Amino acid sequence: MKTILVIHGPNLNLLGKRQPDIYGKSSLKKINESLLKIAKKQKVNLKIVQSNHEGQIVDLIGKSPENFDFIIINPAAYTHTSIAIRDAISACSIPAIEVHLSNIYSREEFRQHSLIAGVCKGQIAGFGAISYELALLAAIKILKQSKVND
Amino acid sequence: MKTILVIHGPNLNLLGKRQPDIYGKSSLKKINESLLKIAKKQKVNLKIVQSNHEGQIVDLIGKSPENFDFIIINPAAYTHTSIAIRDAISACSIPAIEVHLSNIYSREEFRQHSLIAGVCKGQIAGFGAISYELALLAAIKILKQSKVND
Amino acid sequence: MKTILVIHGPNLNLLGKRQPDIYGKSSLKKINESLLKIAKKQKVNLKIVQSNHEGQIVDLIGKSPENFDFIIINPAAYTHTSIAIRDAISACSIPAIEVHLSNIYSREEFRQHSLIAGVCKGQIAGFGAISYELALLAAIKILKQSKVND
Amino acid sequence: MKTILVIHGPNLNLLGKRQPDIYGKSSLKKINESLLKIAKKQKVNLKIVQSNHEGQIVDLIGKSPENFDFIIINPAAYTHTSIAIRDAISACSIPAIEVHLSNIYSREEFRQHSLIAGVCKGQIAGFGAISYELALLAAIKILKQSKVND
Amino acid sequence: MKTILVIHGPNLNLLGKRQPDIYGKSSLKKINESLLKIAKKQKVNLKIVQSNHEGQIVDLIGKSPENFDFIIINPAAYTHTSIAIRDAISACSIPAIEVHLSNIYSREEFRQHSLIAGVCKGQIAGFGAISYELALLAAIKILKQSKVND
Amino acid sequence: MKTILVIHGPNLNLLGKRQPDIYGKSSLKKINESLLKIAKKQKVNLKIVQSNHEGQIVDLIGKSPENFDFIIINPAAYTHTSIAIRDAISACSIPAIEVHLSNIYSREEFRQHSLIAGVCKGQIAGFGAISYELALLAAIKILKQSKVND
Amino acid sequence: MKTILVIHGPNLNLLGKRQPDIYGKSSLKKINESLLKIAKKQKVNLKIVQSNHEGQIVDLIGKSPENFDFIIINPAAYTHTSIAIRDAISACSIPAIEVHLSNIYSREEFRQHSLIAGVCKGQIAGFGAISYELALLAAIKILKQSKVND
Amino acid sequence: MKTILVIHGPNLNLLGKRQPDIYGKSSLKKINESLLKIAKKQKVNLKIVQSNHEGQIVDLIGKSPENFDFIIINPAAYTHTSIAIRDAISACSIPAIEVHLSNIYSREEFRQHSLIAGVCKGQIAGFGAISYELALLAAIKILKQSKVND
Amino acid sequence: MKTILVIHGPNLNLLGKRQPDIYGKSSLKKINESLLKIAKKQKVNLKIVQSNHEGQIVDLIGKSPENFDFIIINPAAYTHTSIAIRDAISACSIPAIEVHLSNIYSREEFRQHSLIAGVCKGQIAGFGAISYELALLAAIKILKQSKVND
Amino acid sequence: MKTILVIHGPNLNLLGKRQPDIYGKSSLKKINESLLKIAKKQKVNLKIVQSNHEGQIVDLIGKSPENFDFIIINPAAYTHTSIAIRDAISACSIPAIEVHLSNIYSREEFRQHSLIAGVCKGQIAGFGAISYELALLAAIKILKQSKVND
Amino acid sequence: MKTILVIHGPNLNLLGKRQPDIYGKSSLKKINESLLKIAKKQKVNLKIVQSNHEGQIVDLIGKSPENFDFIIINPAAYTHTSIAIRDAISACSIPAIEVHLSNIYSREEFRQHSLIAGVCKGQIAGFGAISYELALLAAIKILKQSKVND
Amino acid sequence: MKTILVIHGPNLNLLGKRQPDIYGKSSLKKINESLLKIAKKQKVNLKIVQSNHEGQIVDLIGKSPENFDFIIINPAAYTHTSIAIRDAISACSIPAIEVHLSNIYSREEFRQHSLIAGVCKGQIAGFGAISYELALLAAIKILKQSKVND
Repeated sequence: MKTILVIHGPNLNLLGKRQPDIYGKSSLKKINESLLKIAKKQKVNLKIVQSNHEGQIVDLIGKSPENFDFIIINPAAYTHTSIAIRDAISACSIPAIEVHLSNIYSREEFRQHSLIAGVCKGQIAGFGAISYELALLAAIKILKQSKVND
Repeated sequence: MKTILVIHGPNLNLLGKRQPDIYGKSSLKKINESLLKIAKKQKVNLKIVQSNHEGQIVDLIGKSPENFDFIIINPAAYTHTSIAIRDAISACSIPAIEVHLSNIYSREEFRQHSLIAGVCKGQIAGFGAISYELALLAAIKILKQSKVND
Repeated sequence: MKTILVIHGPNLNLLGKRQPDIYGKSSLKKINESLLKIAKKQKVNLKIVQSNHEGQIVDLIGKSPENFDFIIINPAAYTHTSIAIRDAISACSIPAIEVHLSNIYSREEFRQHSLIAGVCKGQIAGFGAISYELALLAAIKILKQSKVND
Repeated sequence: MKTILVIHGPNLNLLGKRQPDIYGKSSLKKINESLLKIAKKQKVNLKIVQSNHEGQIVDLIGKSPENFDFIIINPAAYTHTSIAIRDAISACSIPAIEVHLSNIYSREEFRQHSLIAGVCKGQIAGFGAISYELALLAAIKILKQSKVND
Repeated sequence: MKTILVIHGPNLNLLGKRQPDIYGKSSLKKINESLLKIAKKQKVNLKIVQSNHEGQIVDLIGKSPENFDFIIINPAAYTHTSIAIRDAISACSIPAIEVHLSNIYSREEFRQHSLIAGVCKGQIAGFGAISYELALLAAIKILKQSKVND
Repeated sequence: MKTILVIHGPNLNLLGKRQPDIYGKSSLKKINESLLKIAKKQKVNLKIVQSNHEGQIVDLIGKSPENFDFIIINPAAYTHTSIAIRDAISACSIPAIEVHLSNIYSREEFRQHSLIAGVCKGQIAGFGAISYELALLAAIKILKQSKVND
Repeated sequence: MKTILVIHGPNLNLLGKRQPDIYGKSSLKKINESLLKIAKKQKVNLKIVQSNHEGQIVDLIGKSPENFDFIIINPAAYTHTSIAIRDAISACSIPAIEVHLSNIYSREEFRQHSLIAGVCKGQIAGFGAISYELALLAAIKILKQSKVND
Repeated sequence: MKTILVIHGPNLNLLGKRQPDIYGKSSLKKINESLLKIAKKQKVNLKIVQSNHEGQIVDLIGKSPENFDFIIINPAAYTHTSIAIRDAISACSIPAIEVHLSNIYSREEFRQHSLIAGVCKGQIAGFGAISYELALLAAIKILKQSKVND
Repeated sequence: MKTILVIHGPNLNLLGKRQPDIYGKSSLKKINESLLKIAKKQKVNLKIVQSNHEGQIVDLIGKSPENFDFIIINPAAYTHTSIAIRDAISACSIPAIEVHLSNIYSREEFRQHSLIAGVCKGQIAGFGAISYELALLAAIKILKQSKVND
Repeated sequence: MKTILVIHGPNLNLLGKRQPDIYGKSSLKKINESLLKIAKKQKVNLKIVQSNHEGQIVDLIGKSPENFDFIIINPAAYTHTSIAIRDAISACSIPAIEVHLSNIYSREEFRQHSLIAGVCKGQIAGFGAISYELALLAAIKILKQSKVND
Repeated sequence: MKTILVIHGPNLNLLGKRQPDIYGKSSLKKINESLLKIAKKQKVNLKIVQSNHEGQIVDLIGKSPENFDFIIINPAAYTHTSIAIRDAISACSIPAIEVHLSNIYSREEFRQHSLIAGVCKGQIAGFGAISYELALLAAIKILKQSKVND
Repeated sequence: MKTILVIHGPNLNLLGKRQPDIYGKSSLKKINESLLKIAKKQKVNLKIVQSNHEGQIVDLIGKSPENFDFIIINPAAYTHTSIAIRDAISACSIPAIEVHLSNIYSREEFRQHSLIAGVCKGQIAGFGAISYELALLAAIKILKQSKVND
């Protein structure tokens, strides 16, 4: 059974409590529950982590090849500033998907460039909690395809 | 029953025949078939159009509020050059999703800025044919939610 | 009797129906009627065309010297992206005025540069339907002056 | 009876005497006379001022709400450098139109960006003395409309 | 007894009358009264001037070493365009503080660069009328420190 | 016998009639005649098309592998704005040469960058009608070389 | 009684020991003592933290609404690189003031843009230890005003 | 006998009193005396003006054709910000020389671009008081040459 | 009989020996032989020079009007850095063609701007050794035309 | 006996396991062993630390003057984003050398600017594990020289 | 007796023969004669050199401290491209003046930035042959002043 | 026995005589002696050349494959301007190291970009004469490794 690592980046612990006009009303807990439900149904394991620390996220990704088959990451503010997370994903041999709750392309200009998207499989942005669900479905599809190809 | 308009932009008619390393091996026909299968199962109508003409795409979007409930568009090369398509989506009262087969963020720099993403609900890029399927699932989810809210 | 060509660019067919906060409440039909009334009074002919197709607009301008004495054009989204329309106006020996309904200088930055204004006689922007009326008055004045100079 | 303030910016006192290829042959006196004739016919008052001093123009606009209903301004060189005039127009509750004799979009690059247009109702450029006449007609039309709406 | 020069730049005479959402409800008169009260209590003299004229402000600063011990200046629009005021402060041997009512860093991009801050002792921005009071307290503190060091 | 497709881009139908100082005195008809003469002598077929429509040019290139062995294209204004034509040439497996009548490197700055040259075999610019003749000679040479290599 | 959180960013633990020409001779301990003295006199509580870790600062701000009424932050080097701290302040419902010891506007160009100032109430820079004292006075003033308004 | 207008721009009244390391030890009075001595010897009249007001300098240049044969101008800070002075020189039919005491090319970057040099006959920078003397010699030489050519 | 100067710029002496994937397999000797064969047939003289020294190339072009009727130049690396060669061609009254073996528009960005193309008759790039042959044919055609016009 | 601190930045713990084409086949362990061997022979102490956390690296450098005589740092991804590490090195009185395994100047553009090099003694890049060895030799040489100078 | 080195940069050997509208009608010989006449009268020696070779100019400046007291240089095209000449002047302990025949500030944009002016005493541009004469007078004045100071 | 070519670029002949604060007190002779000593000990041959001429350096590198096994080059000012030297190194099959005496990253901005580093094996900067010694050691190490691999 495959295991997928879900990383929630900085300030996502505050989700649902504040600024619901931008980030939606779902709390992180609700998003995680809906992901776990899908995972159960699709028979994959999920490991979910939230961290405000760039270094912790780099640590986690660096160790992921031993433990995980796929990474789903919402790098939040680090999307635009962290070459370290980019390098960690790039160094790590397993595929990753970048997720954003909001449509970063209709926000401030400094949020419209991702340092991380270029080393991911793909990017899903703008659908609130649904962004994560689509990413999970995509990850599962890709894992199945690669299985067949093995 | 809701109807979703799927627009394939310039050169996508060539899909599958050439450059499979970038755009995947699926032909446009296969992508359309898989979308129609999902649509049937989820009980929505699909209208699928491919055009190399910016003006035709603008015409089509302009008339969409009378006929459609949602737009899924892969603007291809027009992603980066067409303010006219942006304005058409923006003028039109129905939601849209931008789709890309390839991960535009790992390609040439001029492909990394979308004039259109900012007026869409969200963007999905990098998963080949799966990008379209995820967009269709997202569209259906959003249509159902808005139904509930009415 | 002089004939003036009025070109409405992309998405202007949607005028009045949507986004009245930016583009005003007048429909294109109303604007055209008010222009025809002025034309009648001032004894000039008007030919009015709306097109979403860059190529059609280029075709039209290319053939205009045989049929028209003046061009009034609202290039809309093509203002910022079409060197082809610029070249057509520049190649064509008759004078042109660029018109905008909205004040493009208080909108998004990418709308603040016109590729076309530089090859026109002048530019009028920001007065809604009145922009067209002023352009028509200007065109008639200029045509009368040049008549006197002949 | 409404009163409209017309402001001629720096170096416009030299009009007609020099560089007629760019700014036309009309002297400022002639332009003013033609404006006064239109004003008389349309039953509005005009107050016309020329100044080379940014500070004087700011003073004048700052006091305009007590005395005037509309501002027509050709900021000339200050178009491109004066945030103070921009702020004065923005702070002042009455509408303004920016006017240019020449087509600033076919001149040096540093003349193609206006700091002031964004806070005006609209902009008219390139018609020589006619630019002012069109601006006056526009101002009168807008004043009449707003009267009706009151 | 020390004397501090307070300079209010362009359009600040309009304060309180208009745009209270950006600049607060205090009129310039009220700000000046509160500054004079603090000055009286702290035993320093104040000289307060408002001017819309860049040249007058340069004149004033140029003569300040003969009459003043400190300058508090809100250069308003000239913050972003006046190298002449920068040079005057720089040439003048007495210290200066730059003050802004609004937080210029959350406004238009062209307001986010100060030509003047670099030659001042420091900058205080965003606290409405309190910005001036803090600047006055800072000036008094600095004057007392330098006294001790003499 | 090999067949070469010659595409004349927007406004080239106006050739020879206007602006002969920039584009030369040859009409498009004369250029085509001289190309046909060379083709006959060198025993290759020519198919010559002029279009002002970006979409038509994309359509044409997309279908070219079935019908043609080489493309000679003067993209005119689309040189600088059409990623769609670039993608069409890039997707299409047959070689292409970019041709310009004028020396685009001694004209306006926005004409000095080609979006299309990078995916062509080479570029020939500045020789008026001779540019096309040289391109035809080059195409024939390259076709002969590749024949030998088969 | 209100509680104010004071955050000292990276390298501020080194204060006073090194580079006194830029950052002044006060050690962080002395600054904190002087702030505590003011706080005592003004009857507010202070919580003072120094951290070199971006993630810790984000954690702290994220939890602040439960514990604090106001934030005074000297983000030091993170001023220019941390969108995560910006987002934390922005997500958090309590007001913040940005403080700098040195005048960042007379230093290297990369220190002249703050990612954080735009989401703060205001900014105070350049007065050494006095910067903090002014910020504390401002915070207390604002807390009192908002109290009155409740 | 020819008359030459010498304009000293903003802050040059402070010359010699402050910052002698950049601007030299000569006071403006001394520079003027040395210029008058040369003028007397070379039999030309001099009119010397110092102003901190952009508007006054524009006024003065605008009226100069009636009174003067040549302009020598040190625009100081206005060198980099005044399009109005540029336009005045450009509108005025008499030749001008731009003078700088310091070598502006070894100072801050914003001092290295002159808006005014492009419309002058030439520029002399970096020689302290000698800059003015060389400019005067050049002006006299040019006036003599043009005399001969008449 | 006309004489044409062919200049091979820096590193072209190494041609054919190294990096044949970019520059082709022809050695400079072979290219020269093929050019001489064409020249003989077309009855023009050729003078061929290779130099790695910018100064020598400038010397050579400076003296060319006495000896040559046309210049064909491959400036290689100096294409992008030598204003001196640009000025030499510009000062020299005889026409020049810029030649490149590789398609510089599909290489590094710093190779995509030519300082020299703007002062040449035209540019031919991307055809390997054929680039030179086409340039020679173009030069001969142009020399014949100008002969006729004399 | 002198002590040198060696800091390995983010993701360097993964060295040797992945992407050997860019970073070489040596593991971090091997590099450390070879450095310790040199240190032993040259009679200096080494303290070697690897961290993915910017804050930890800042902490470490901040405390280094008490414990170390020299710093050798490979800031990896933080090279391009960490002003905090720059400030720490700059605040700290001991010399530092920046080391890179790969030649950062032949990689992505965002890797070609170092925020840290400017405050170091020097930089060594591109030699794989040898980069560290050269840095250690340089550090020892410099420590010896400064000893002599004491 | 002092000796002054005059360096004429690339293409200045062609002076007077071609493009007299930009560079004047004086040949280099005439300029040199007029300089030698002034030198004789003012009792200084002149050494005059023209070179198209950047390396020769660098050699010459490198050896100048042994032989010369002052350098007058017209770097022509190398003004904008040669850091080597900048470094040579900067390394060399004797003062230099940069001279230009034309007003480089009213020419192409790439001619408006000098790499060399920043390390010279000053710059004189735009007076044709007179530029050199003024430079020689300035050099002599400066040499006399420094003599007095010895 | 291997032979290493050492190239000293422009102005390095002046080393030690002038500006010792930037480039150190060692003369080029001393540097060369220390390199020869190391070479002797390590049993490699050295060929050392200094040149101010870009063309000579290009010539030398072009011929190096016949004579040398490695290049150590300090391109000095040509680092930032010479694509010709870049191309020569790139064309030449032997490895090269770029050396700088000073830390170019703490100097003027135009010295912080190297056109040459990208085609070298690596770069060593900032250690004065030691930079060369480290480069020589690195070259020898690399030559030994490649020997083993043969």
